Amino acid sequence: MARRLFSFVGGNHGSWKVIRMDTVIGEGLPKVDALGIIEGMLTAPSNGHSWVLRGVTSYARYVHSDERQHLQQLQASLDRPQATCAALIPIKKSAAWWELPQDVRRAIFEEQSHHTAIGIGYMPAIARRLHHGYDLGEPFDFLTWFEYAPEDAPAFERLTQALRAAEEWRYVEREIDIRLIKY
Amino acid sequence: MARRLFSFVGGNHGSWKVIRMDTVIGEGLPKVDALGIIEGMLTAPSNGHSWVLRGVTSYARYVHSDERQHLQQLQASLDRPQATCAALIPIKKSAAWWELPQDVRRAIFEEQSHHTAIGIGYMPAIARRLHHGYDLGEPFDFLTWFEYAPEDAPAFERLTQALRAAEEWRYVEREIDIRLIKY
Repeated sequence: MARRLFSFVGGNHGSWKVIRMDTVIGEGLPKVDALGIIEGMLTAPSNGHSWVLRGVTSYARYVHSDERQHLQQLQASLDRPQATCAALIPIKKSAAWWELPQDVRRAIFEEQSHHTAIGIGYMPAIARRLHHGYDLGEPFDFLTWFEYAPEDAPAFERLTQALRAAEEWRYVEREIDIRLIKY
Repeated sequence: MARRLFSFVGGNHGSWKVIRMDTVIGEGLPKVDALGIIEGMLTAPSNGHSWVLRGVTSYARYVHSDERQHLQQLQASLDRPQATCAALIPIKKSAAWWELPQDVRRAIFEEQSHHTAIGIGYMPAIARRLHHGYDLGEPFDFLTWFEYAPEDAPAFERLTQALRAAEEWRYVEREIDIRLIKY
């Protein structure tokens, strides 16, 4: 398996402390105290772990050339010392979403919902890494990992609210919002 | 893992007899006499098997609404009694391909290479199922499985030649062409 695969492990230990865990829509996940991130495949929860979610970084499905240029200019990397706040947002979209043709999905994603444009507005304060689970047969299609400084926490609230208010979010059938701080 | 996952097993037994196995570009695969198709994950070659290639059926990455409508009207299903010929074509594309933005990949795929339009021209004679391996970390990004009747074999040659002559194929860095007949 490629080194693009990450396992997010919820349990009683890990390098991030869970400070809030909300079920936004659909079935929840067992509450945990801590989260660890492991590069590679962890096949099952082990001692002290409650659940494992897996995802793989991949090519962007909707970003066009001009948007990519903006993203590359503005996006921050993970692991900045001041970015002691994080969020893991696992999302599953509906079968109706996945059955849409590419042009319709793209139009909902960007022309109607402005997903990339909204995200760019919060860069470089909020760093992000997207992991895909759909082709892995995982319970969540996307695991998005965000890192930001404590003073950018209000901006992060505005970002998640803007994305959840968009047309695209009508196709989300399961979403958990996990907030964390660095131990 | 979803039931969308298929394992193609090369070895000395299976329901398809290998009649030709050509390396089109890049590293080859060990020659085998037979191929089996297993629904689900086969993690490693077992007794009498030489290799296992895995892929998952998924949503279409490039097909637009109008093309989808054509595809749905014309495409044949697998397992037709007269379709005793088959081909498995594993393909890996270059890193340069995967780094292109979506709009550029789409333009190369369809507006320049007419991938879907060419394929539609050979429907319903040639049935097809595409399996994705990129997000699984598999050695091949795509495993395309084709089924057709013996009298359509010349048409299948024209189809593969047309696709290999297209701009999109400049991004293919490994391709094996395996031809089979039903046992």
